[in-house]
Amino acid sequence: MSFEEIQKRYVDAVNGALMRYLSDGRIHPRLAGAMAYSVTAGGKRLRASLLLAACELAGGTVEKALPFAAALEMIHTYSLIHDDLPAMDDDCLRRGKPTNHVVFGEGMAILAGDGLLNYAMQVMLSAALEDESKNALRAAHEIAERAGVWGMIAGQAEDLCAEGKEPEEKTLYYIHAHKTADMLLASLRSGGMLGGADEKLMDALTVYGEKLGLAFQIQDDLLDLFGTEASLGKSVGKDEKQKKLTFPALYGTERAQNMQERYCKEAAEALSGYDAPFLKEMAAKLAKRTF
Amino acid sequence: MSFEEIQKRYVDAVNGALMRYLSDGRIHPRLAGAMAYSVTAGGKRLRASLLLAACELAGGTVEKALPFAAALEMIHTYSLIHDDLPAMDDDCLRRGKPTNHVVFGEGMAILAGDGLLNYAMQVMLSAALEDESKNALRAAHEIAERAGVWGMIAGQAEDLCAEGKEPEEKTLYYIHAHKTADMLLASLRSGGMLGGADEKLMDALTVYGEKLGLAFQIQDDLLDLFGTEASLGKSVGKDEKQKKLTFPALYGTERAQNMQERYCKEAAEALSGYDAPFLKEMAAKLAKRTF
Repeated sequence: MSFEEIQKRYVDAVNGALMRYLSDGRIHPRLAGAMAYSVTAGGKRLRASLLLAACELAGGTVEKALPFAAALEMIHTYSLIHDDLPAMDDDCLRRGKPTNHVVFGEGMAILAGDGLLNYAMQVMLSAALEDESKNALRAAHEIAERAGVWGMIAGQAEDLCAEGKEPEEKTLYYIHAHKTADMLLASLRSGGMLGGADEKLMDALTVYGEKLGLAFQIQDDLLDLFGTEASLGKSVGKDEKQKKLTFPALYGTERAQNMQERYCKEAAEALSGYDAPFLKEMAAKLAKRTF
Repeated sequence: MSFEEIQKRYVDAVNGALMRYLSDGRIHPRLAGAMAYSVTAGGKRLRASLLLAACELAGGTVEKALPFAAALEMIHTYSLIHDDLPAMDDDCLRRGKPTNHVVFGEGMAILAGDGLLNYAMQVMLSAALEDESKNALRAAHEIAERAGVWGMIAGQAEDLCAEGKEPEEKTLYYIHAHKTADMLLASLRSGGMLGGADEKLMDALTVYGEKLGLAFQIQDDLLDLFGTEASLGKSVGKDEKQKKLTFPALYGTERAQNMQERYCKEAAEALSGYDAPFLKEMAAKLAKRTF
């Protein structure tokens, strides 16, 4: 199967799971609408695909990993909804559509974010209850740890604190390691755990995830500088406006591009001993900025 | 031991656990400060006490239940922080102190709430990983289910949707069942699970929790009408101002008081076959409005 075929298989599977979870009749109806609006707004399902690929690489099945892949996308979406709020990044466009609070109001957007985070945990706990091994529980714990106050939320907090200050290298790495890379690491590592990966494969997935995380963040920074609102479906140029700390701001565009390519190469190299065409191809595509 | 001595034992234990969790150096420092500000702002630790009492009644220990008691208080606190935000209830006073967003700003308050919800899940998942039985995992699942989009968050969503509309009985019960009673039920039921309660005791704890939840909500409504800002440490009279649906608004004060007393009596009766002095005394105190 080609990269695109594997990707379509992963994306279709996780979209189906998300639809099933979000159409559960026990969710408050208007809240469910607000949650579904942002979850189904598109996106590459990067985190879900990484989790499913890592699980399959370790010998597990897509079916077993699906609740965790859906949970990752719910967590990612909640973080975007809260990030877009007026008190945070104050963004009114995301993936070409008005942001959640523009459509549903700020109060409901806050609740939709809370709801997605909580529902992600609930879905993972349900799956862990049905799992005879402790693999599912370990995967849920990994995701909770890296999504939380040691991980993604710590990155967002530092991002908020750093706004308007002069860019500093240490702060930039802290923000990106936590705000972006931690969730990609969680995807790969929890996927490995669900598939029953040994220590060597877990280490390889970890290095791959760290490098890929940095490469994605640099790409995000570059797109914010050079992309167009039409092609990206979100506001651009806001990093500069908000004096945000970014790789291009710190190192200049050319050096940032070189760094991105190097990180992609190192990511693929970490998996050199494994038959992992999907993950290696993703790194290669990212280096050429075609993912 | 007297009711007050047992209560002090529970409160001291959960406060100690919360301090340990919140002083973890891996949390982003300013975020940790914002989380700790609201967690340590006082409060009766009602949910933690119910969980610990139910666990002991079922034959379990306080030690084993402590991560879950702390998690409940984190979830309760996050819901208050987000509820107080300008886009929700817009409250600037809570437990006699300025609310979280007044002190730390709206963006950080949103993150502190997200952080507490996520950290609660993380703490429970860590405890479940160390538990040889599935009791801890079942307790975590129970809490996630009732705190989430079928439970507390559903109640908050309906509360938001109902603001400014004419009070309707069905809506009132939906909001209170989910916004308040679900978390009390989660406390009692997860405590029972952690102690290894049999089905009969689980049923009794469930009925006790349902009745107690309604009684507490009526008390909250009455205090908002008749309490003073000085004695309660929070703004009063806001339900009426915001045309909120409350028991007194729907039934009148006297009938609401009678309902509260009846629910307390029925709560205690549900545990009549058990040696549960703390839980019965709590219901009795609530009926006399001395808790």
